Formats: sequence, structure tokens, C-alpha cells
Amino acid sequence: MKISINQISFNIVKNLIKNSDKLQLKVKTGALDCTIIDAGINTPGSIEAGLLISEVCLGGLGRVSITPSNFFDDSTIMQISIHSAHPVLACLGSQYAGWSLSSGDFFSLGSGPVRSIAQKEEIFNVLKYTDNYEETVTILEVDKEPPVEIVQKVSEDCKIKSKNLVFVLTPTTSVAGNIQVVARVLEVAIHKIHELGFPLERIESGFGTAPLPPLGKNFVSAMGRTNDSIIYGGNVQLVVNGPENDLINLAKDLPSSNSKDYGKTFKKIFEEYNQDFYKIDGSLFSPARVIINSKESGKVYNSGNINKEIIKSSFES
Amino acid sequence: MKISINQISFNIVKNLIKNSDKLQLKVKTGALDCTIIDAGINTPGSIEAGLLISEVCLGGLGRVSITPSNFFDDSTIMQISIHSAHPVLACLGSQYAGWSLSSGDFFSLGSGPVRSIAQKEEIFNVLKYTDNYEETVTILEVDKEPPVEIVQKVSEDCKIKSKNLVFVLTPTTSVAGNIQVVARVLEVAIHKIHELGFPLERIESGFGTAPLPPLGKNFVSAMGRTNDSIIYGGNVQLVVNGPENDLINLAKDLPSSNSKDYGKTFKKIFEEYNQDFYKIDGSLFSPARVIINSKESGKVYNSGNINKEIIKSSFES
Amino acid sequence: MKISINQISFNIVKNLIKNSDKLQLKVKTGALDCTIIDAGINTPGSIEAGLLISEVCLGGLGRVSITPSNFFDDSTIMQISIHSAHPVLACLGSQYAGWSLSSGDFFSLGSGPVRSIAQKEEIFNVLKYTDNYEETVTILEVDKEPPVEIVQKVSEDCKIKSKNLVFVLTPTTSVAGNIQVVARVLEVAIHKIHELGFPLERIESGFGTAPLPPLGKNFVSAMGRTNDSIIYGGNVQLVVNGPENDLINLAKDLPSSNSKDYGKTFKKIFEEYNQDFYKIDGSLFSPARVIINSKESGKVYNSGNINKEIIKSSFES
Repeated sequence: MKISINQISFNIVKNLIKNSDKLQLKVKTGALDCTIIDAGINTPGSIEAGLLISEVCLGGLGRVSITPSNFFDDSTIMQISIHSAHPVLACLGSQYAGWSLSSGDFFSLGSGPVRSIAQKEEIFNVLKYTDNYEETVTILEVDKEPPVEIVQKVSEDCKIKSKNLVFVLTPTTSVAGNIQVVARVLEVAIHKIHELGFPLERIESGFGTAPLPPLGKNFVSAMGRTNDSIIYGGNVQLVVNGPENDLINLAKDLPSSNSKDYGKTFKKIFEEYNQDFYKIDGSLFSPARVIINSKESGKVYNSGNINKEIIKSSFES
Repeated sequence: MKISINQISFNIVKNLIKNSDKLQLKVKTGALDCTIIDAGINTPGSIEAGLLISEVCLGGLGRVSITPSNFFDDSTIMQISIHSAHPVLACLGSQYAGWSLSSGDFFSLGSGPVRSIAQKEEIFNVLKYTDNYEETVTILEVDKEPPVEIVQKVSEDCKIKSKNLVFVLTPTTSVAGNIQVVARVLEVAIHKIHELGFPLERIESGFGTAPLPPLGKNFVSAMGRTNDSIIYGGNVQLVVNGPENDLINLAKDLPSSNSKDYGKTFKKIFEEYNQDFYKIDGSLFSPARVIINSKESGKVYNSGNINKEIIKSSFES
Repeated sequence: MKISINQISFNIVKNLIKNSDKLQLKVKTGALDCTIIDAGINTPGSIEAGLLISEVCLGGLGRVSITPSNFFDDSTIMQISIHSAHPVLACLGSQYAGWSLSSGDFFSLGSGPVRSIAQKEEIFNVLKYTDNYEETVTILEVDKEPPVEIVQKVSEDCKIKSKNLVFVLTPTTSVAGNIQVVARVLEVAIHKIHELGFPLERIESGFGTAPLPPLGKNFVSAMGRTNDSIIYGGNVQLVVNGPENDLINLAKDLPSSNSKDYGKTFKKIFEEYNQDFYKIDGSLFSPARVIINSKESGKVYNSGNINKEIIKSSFES
């Protein structure tokens, strides 16, 4: 793999900085001279910024669009779609929010191509991809700036000077934050495929779509809606190699409806587990519906259903 | 506000000029050495040009797309969508066709970022935005070139040499003219919000969509269809701040169905008022349907309905 | 016509080469030092590459997009759309796969702007367009590299050194091959209009859309599905000049349902003719549904129907 996802995505980061006024972003200097791109804390952010930040999350290896939809139009007329020709690397090697970056009362999970330089997560043993670049970007779904300890940690773990680090901050309640989470509809599918023990190298290309929920009033509400968007409204189509029976089983096992926690809004589930995210059944995190296209047989296996009732209940309450 | 909407949109204008053959545009020198971009008089123009010109109308602060739709597919399979992170400035400070530029038998309402330099309209007292740039662009929905008096007036009012003025001409009956009017679906909502006395600064971001009508045979027919597209087929979603009751009332009052003139094709209404545009109830000019997403409570308030019958009657007769 | 479709589209070709890793393409040197872009033989290719290659096929004079669709969502959630302001030149002068480039057991029909330099087909007597450029690109829907005789032939017929020739190879079973065929939905309409004897110069602009089928297991299956996508799922809208009766008849005669072979999956038809492509009724090759918008009267004439049953049978078997 000759690709540097940090190099590719840093071009998009430069575009964010250059067009910050137009995109309703605030760019400032943070701890240890790092660069902070505020995408929704002290500035409203924008749909356009949300799409570009989603592509940064994907290490520049996916395209994210917004199109009109009349499918859930009591609450939203927008849907997000995403496609990638490197779905495993883009989603698991970059977009997945898997790097714990917490310090004191600052809790966050780092996302973006920085993870492939830091190599702090087990998934990189599977992906066998290491990147190396003189600048890098970390996306944090937070509503405050990363403290000096976190900037220091990223700098040390990546061996990159802190002045060459960019942090993009996307609160879940903001326009850009809302989009960048829903743009994870494909990632959630790839992640669950890995959890199911299916070999990732058999996945060739992916396309996904999900409704863009209305903005939520606070973190829990916004997190609930973006998760419901994927779990009850997400639709993913994959081209996959491998024995037919494996694909039949994959299609069957993949949708969120396989989870024991399926059937209530995410917020309700979260509250029933006393807001302990890690008690939620992991197999819930998956698109509502999948189509597996067998590369070898040309057959399609679909499974799961869009759940309009729960989307309605989530987006309209 | 550090943004110069004239600077941003002039980059798109240069693109129109550079790719004029590909975009089926004719570029020529007009009165007083100004530049004329004919987008549909002596040349067919194009969908691509229509999208780009719509973005020029928005001062470069909005994105306009065309996507397939099967919603009105007896008469059109195309829909326009638009989003902006600066909906008030882009729509009222630039896209709104509010500057009277008539002389003799040349009647037109100027649109585009030029208006924010000229400062000839009351709305700029509300917007408190003044631009300043050495080149500017005026969009005119006309089928002939602006006479020397109009070029002179724009030059003087803007204090810009006439050779640095660009006029884009988009007859309503042309492909590009058709698109640039329908792309006003969001502007029409923002304008009505202002007419309703709701504070514009509470509007944070906007997305709109409307069907793209088939081309009309003449000005009245084309104007009728593009207005019907918005009034009976337009759909707008906004993120808005402010007290909950204000938003509930805004959602209720905003759709076109509140107008006493609602319920007939625009052409019929226009003819019943003996083609006197200014006799039409101003509150008719609004999207068919709106979703207001309260930033504070996260709630959504929708109101209005797509009127398939009137769209059918307008587009198919 | 001042446009060089080879110059315009070669910019896209350079982009394919520059971003080959990201786009999952393989670039190599072929016979006589020509450049080969493998878009799906020894590399998976990508959706993004398929869209760009489709635009190369159109000589750079059309835009091709992918958007989500829930219309055939048991088998696919993707649709392709295309629009062009030069539909006749882009589709017949470039995209049409009309140049026979076979040698020994290498069978192919050349597509792309190269055809307008080579001038080996009768259609150019009608189009009266000849291009001239120092580099050119040929698209071949094949699964092996063109042999030296073919490279030599293209070089000689175009009077371009073989080192300045690019060949893009898109097997029908690949992601990019699948897209670039379905992106012919507008071309197929324009071609049939010509076959019906309707004057091409009356066609002003075009928009088309068709579902993107799942990948097929082999050439016959993939060819079947992509043809079914257009013949039973394709939708085209055109702005056309000319006498009203001509347009009424054009709308009536244009859809695929006029063909005596209409009503079975393409694969079945192909097999019933013992896999002799040229025995299939030529009038079958047309979109399922058309809307003709008369430029003069503003009326719309639609004809044909999307055939969900045959799409289902084709995509799901």
C-alpha cells in the first residue's frame, strides 16, 4: 500500500483552514501551538464543513455527499451517502473513533488518519497499515479544546511536533458533528463484519446511506438520533469475495436487528443501561439493512429493514 | 464578517468564462466594455451553467446540485437542492432579485453580490453587510442585453469601472434560467421569514429542494412553472434559534398555504391579477413545506404540504 | 465548434493516473509504450474511478454522479445520473462504443474521444465534428490488454505516436465497468433518436438516470444486468426543438417497450439468439422511459414505464 492517508487528508484540512469563514469554522492556536479547527463550539459550522470533515475522517479515501430525501420527511429532508474503494482502511484504519484520548475531565475517542501513525490500537495488527507523515489530523467529537496533556500525548505517540498537529472539534449537537457521525454508516458495517470474524480482506467496495437527523438539544439526544439514523435508517451495500455460504451468513448476521437491544430508540437503551455505553450490546452498532453482492456468484443477499417507526420516534421527540 | 461575497463568487464567474464553450455560454463585450455572459439567449446554456450561476447568485456561499427524482416523474425527473451556512447573507444579501435596474423598455431586477456593493436596498440596513471589491457580477433574468444606461448606473452606484462589471443573462425560458430561479427555494423561505418579522440572526443553516420544471414556452409560462415548483413543490429545512413558541408559530406561518392566493397555478393567479405581479399576495412566495429544527430544544416543527395536483397541472399543461 | 473533446477529457485521464492508488487503478506501460489504465482486471477499481471514466467516455462534456435510491432496494441502493449540454457530440461523437478494434481473439469496440480523431465511423459524416490533439484516450470494455496490432492501428488511424495513447480497460464485471455502461443511458436514447431518423441538431440538452445493478459473475451476466438497467430501469429527459407532431411521435417511438424483443431479461434474449448480439432488435436499446420537453411549446410528452419485475428478475437471479 503506497497510500499515505495523512498526506491525502491533509489537503482537505488545508482547504478547511483556507475557507474557514465561508465554512463557518473558527481556526485558532491551541495548546503547545497545535492548530484547533472549531467546527461547532463557538461557531455554527456548516453542512459543507461536515461533509469535508467526514472525508478527513476517512483519510481522504471516501466521498461523502448530501442529497434530498423524502423518506422520513416529517423530520428531515436530507440524507448522507458515502462510498469508498478502500472501505476497510478508510473506515477502520482512519474513521473509527478508537483511540482513547482522555485526561482528567476531558473524555474523547480520537478518530482520523492520526490513528494509523500512532498505532496504539489492536486493529492495526489486523490492518497491517502504518502511515508516516510530517503533519496529521485528529477528529474529536467534543465541545471543548483538548488540554495540553492530550496534545502532548498525540505529539509523542506520533513523533510529530505539536505545531504540526491539527485537531478538528465536532460537537455531536452541531451541524458538522451530526453529519460526521451519520457518515459512519459504512464504518459501522465494516466494524461489525470484523466483530463477526469475517475476513476483512474479502470486502472490495462499499456504499452506504442514512437519513440526516435534526440536530439534538444536547449530547445524549444528538448521540441518540445519530445512532438511530444508522441502526434503524442506515443502508449499506458491499461487494464481497468468498464462499457463498459465508456471504449468506454475513448478510443474515450483519443488520442491527440481530441485536438483543434492537427495537427501542438508542437514547432509551442508553438510559436503561444507566448511561453506560459499554453495557450496550455491541452487535446493535450496525446498519438497519444490508445488501451483500457476491463478487464470485453475482448474487445479492439482503437482510434487515428500515424501521420508520423508531426513526420517527427518535427524530420527532 | 470578513467574507467578500464578490471575491468568492468572482472565482466562479471566471470559471464560467474560461469554460464557456463547454457550458454552452456566449461571452461577449457589452456596453461600455462590460462583459456579458449570455446563458440562454443566443446559446442554449446548460444544466452545469445553471448550477454554477445559482452559486454566483448566492455570492459563492451556497452549494447547488441536481439529482434524479421520481416524485413528479410524469413531467420531470430532476430536482434541485441547495444548502448554505450563511443563508441570510447568501439569500437576502446576494441572491434576492431586489435591485431595480430598468431603463426605457428594459425591465429587470438585479440579483447577485453586486447588490451588497451598491447598497441601494433597505434590506442592507438590516443585514449590516457592505462589500467592496474591484470586480462584480450582476445576474439579470432577461432576454436582451442591458442598455448603456444600466451599465452606467451599476458602474456609478458601485464605483467600479464598467470594464470590471460582468452581467450574466438568464432568460426564464432557458435551462440555466430555469435552474437559477428554482434554486431560490431557500431564499424565498428566508425572505418570508423576514416579512413575518422573525429576527434573521436566529437562522443558522438551511437546506432546500424543489422539482426542476420542464422549460416553459415563454416568459409567463416559465415564470409560472418555476414559481409553482417552489410554492407547491418546494421543501425547506432550517436550524433556528429562539423561544420555542416563536418557532412553532414560524413553522405554522411560513408555508405558501397560508396565502389567500394559494390553490391555483401561479400563471392563473398572475392572469387573474391582469399580469400585475405586485397585486399577488406576498405571503404566497414561500416553499410548500417547511421543517424548523429548534437548536435549543432539538424539536422539529413541520408544516405545509407538497401539492402534487397543482404541480401536475402546471408542469403538464 | 471550438471544443477539443480530447483536450478536455485528457485532463480527467491525468487525474486518473495521478490518483491511481486512491482510485484502485493500476497504471502500466503497454505495447509500443502506450499507457494502460487497468480499472478492474488486476485491481478492484472503484465507484469514483467509474464516474470519472464515464466522464472521459463523454469527452469531458457530461457530468456523471451516483446517488442513493430506494427504488429497487432489494438489490441495489445506488443509481447513476448523467447530464450533458452537448448530448449529441458527447454521446455519439465520443461515448458510443462504435469503433471496431479487434485482432485475433481480442474483440473490442472502442469508445471515447479517440473516435473523433480516427474518423473511422459513418456517424462522423452526420456529426461533422473532427478533433485533433496530440494525446488521446480509448476506453475498452475488455478483460485483457490490447495487443500490439490494436495499439498500432489506433496510432496510425489517429496519426498519434503510440506513447501518447492511453487505453482504459473496464471489464463489464468490475465496479468501474458496471458504472461506465449504465452511464450510457443518455447515449442509448440519443442513438435511438438517430436510428429513428429524427434530426440530431434539434436535441438541446439531456438528463438521464438508471439504477446501478449489482456486479455480475461473468461477462454475459454483467452485460445482461447493465443492459436491463437501461432498457427496463432507465429514465431520460430531453429538451428538443421541432414541430410538435414530430416530438409526440418521438416520445412514443423512443422507449424500449417499442421493441419486439421487449419483455424478457437481456440475458434471456441474448441466449435465445444464441449469443449473437447482432440478431437482437436494435430498437430494444433505449431507456425504459422518456420525457420529451418541447422547447417551442413547453409541453412534455412522456412514454414508457419502469419495469420493476424484470429489473428484479435480472438483478436478483
